[in-house]
Amino acid sequence: MFATIEEFKKVLGNLPERSEDAAQKALERQSQLTKPQGSLGRLEELAVWYCGWRGSAKPPLEKSQVIVFAGNHGVAARNVSAFPVEVTEKMVQNFNAGGAAINQLANCFGSKLTVRPLSLDKPTADFTRGPAMSEDEFVNALMAGWEAVDVESDLITVGEMGIGNTTSAAAIAHSLFGGEAADWTGAGTGVKGEDLKRKAGVVALGVRENPAAHGNGLESLRCLGGREIAAMAGAMIKARVERIPVVLDGYICTAAAAALEVASRGALEHAVAGHLSAEGSHPRLLSLINKRPILSLGMRLGEGSGGALAIGTIKAAMACHNGMATFDEADISSR
Amino acid sequence: MFATIEEFKKVLGNLPERSEDAAQKALERQSQLTKPQGSLGRLEELAVWYCGWRGSAKPPLEKSQVIVFAGNHGVAARNVSAFPVEVTEKMVQNFNAGGAAINQLANCFGSKLTVRPLSLDKPTADFTRGPAMSEDEFVNALMAGWEAVDVESDLITVGEMGIGNTTSAAAIAHSLFGGEAADWTGAGTGVKGEDLKRKAGVVALGVRENPAAHGNGLESLRCLGGREIAAMAGAMIKARVERIPVVLDGYICTAAAAALEVASRGALEHAVAGHLSAEGSHPRLLSLINKRPILSLGMRLGEGSGGALAIGTIKAAMACHNGMATFDEADISSR
Repeated sequence: MFATIEEFKKVLGNLPERSEDAAQKALERQSQLTKPQGSLGRLEELAVWYCGWRGSAKPPLEKSQVIVFAGNHGVAARNVSAFPVEVTEKMVQNFNAGGAAINQLANCFGSKLTVRPLSLDKPTADFTRGPAMSEDEFVNALMAGWEAVDVESDLITVGEMGIGNTTSAAAIAHSLFGGEAADWTGAGTGVKGEDLKRKAGVVALGVRENPAAHGNGLESLRCLGGREIAAMAGAMIKARVERIPVVLDGYICTAAAAALEVASRGALEHAVAGHLSAEGSHPRLLSLINKRPILSLGMRLGEGSGGALAIGTIKAAMACHNGMATFDEADISSR
Repeated sequence: MFATIEEFKKVLGNLPERSEDAAQKALERQSQLTKPQGSLGRLEELAVWYCGWRGSAKPPLEKSQVIVFAGNHGVAARNVSAFPVEVTEKMVQNFNAGGAAINQLANCFGSKLTVRPLSLDKPTADFTRGPAMSEDEFVNALMAGWEAVDVESDLITVGEMGIGNTTSAAAIAHSLFGGEAADWTGAGTGVKGEDLKRKAGVVALGVRENPAAHGNGLESLRCLGGREIAAMAGAMIKARVERIPVVLDGYICTAAAAALEVASRGALEHAVAGHLSAEGSHPRLLSLINKRPILSLGMRLGEGSGGALAIGTIKAAMACHNGMATFDEADISSR
């Protein structure tokens, strides 16, 4: 637990590692299953990764959790989205009523859905005029993420809803990795042409006005993030502490992950990239944190949708890992 | 139904088309669901494709079927596999005992698994000495596939088991599309170096000895295929006749599909490519029949494993399509 940024940094400096013994035993088991060596491709890697973090050569995967955080952004007043800010709240209602994509995707693969709206009536400050959050606001958002993780979960993905939050994610990425603001700024809900140029200008201005964020993981989240982005970061770290593997969703989630990696290299070793988003600079951001997406389906919805879909693939990987017969059991020998 | 190759050709010449009306209505529904337009990417395309073939704007997807055909190949005597021919039968026992990858993958996404061993005690003739099958044998294999499709199914994938059958698939592809035998010959269960060169030589010899197969879809299946490959083709066409969408598996399944496309252009319009196999020439074969894979996970197992995994993605696509609220239902408006 933590009550200040300094205390959160201590958590980051003292993260548990995976069990190399469990990973090694899982790898050996993969070589004994009734299939040509390596023929399940990425599914084999995912199984070994999962086993290592769960600390067992044959761990169950039965309690996956999808957590969606929602937050409102002061910068949304600068018309950076194709949708009005009220839609954040409306979509939370839609999540609670079961009508959104993430409801169907969580159901489809047997994941529990947890929805956490974060002070929607109190948007973060417009980051083009200074930090989006005070230190207290930031710590509270991290803590909201931390507390949303069910410690009984055995796999989680974190998603978000927040009108304006691709602007925030782009600003975080730009503040962390430099380059041009336009390189990090994408269409989000469907912003094009002159509107997209204006959006990139807002990203550039935000980064210029928040020098504390430059190359600084936690400050980039505080100064340029929204509450839902900070909460995703908090949830990812809580999962690490509990040795619960994490599936990253798209661009916004990856921006939160990248900030953590910059703050503490290796902090996301327990995470895999669920998918490659259609948001333009997602590939670059993923490669900067050394993650290779499981799926690439042109999705760009957020809500944890790509992560929730990838949970299906990881469940398949573990179903094979745990359920297949070995060559000995099936009485099969190779040449 | 059909009792001769000529009669099967008549079936091929008279295939039903999808409902454009249902596809159009599905497309309209996608534009009304609570998400930015197009933000579910490929899931949206898959939903529209599925609806068109099922002839409904909101069809259920509840009865998926995975069919695995097994056959033995005379050409296996030429040591083209890393496994002995007895493994085909052993793996069928493994399927029936529930111990193979395909059992876990079918279970994982709620698909019914149907296993059809085809005269395993009677391998096809060695195709380097002439046609693998007589016309009667070929028609019987097509029919075995046709009859394995449960007409109540609402989505199917077809897979195979047969020691030596990547050699057979490579010969089919080479006979259909020319080029060099080595271009179409891959590692299969794990053949490398000199063994792989020898395998390519067997492919080249088979194609040279079967001139009737050159550029001829059905003759390529008869002369160079195995019973399980012909059966996959029969099942795909039965599915088309029943308007059941098909998910292609990997290289061997795609070779069967390609033969049908050459025999009757458009015969596979009801099919999507489930995944990109790690078998080297699968990308080329898929692009020749104009199919874009849903998944790309480095799998190369066969058994219908890639198709069964892709069924999970299509189920997710239809869960979103059928289950999401519209903007009107959620009382949301864009700018």
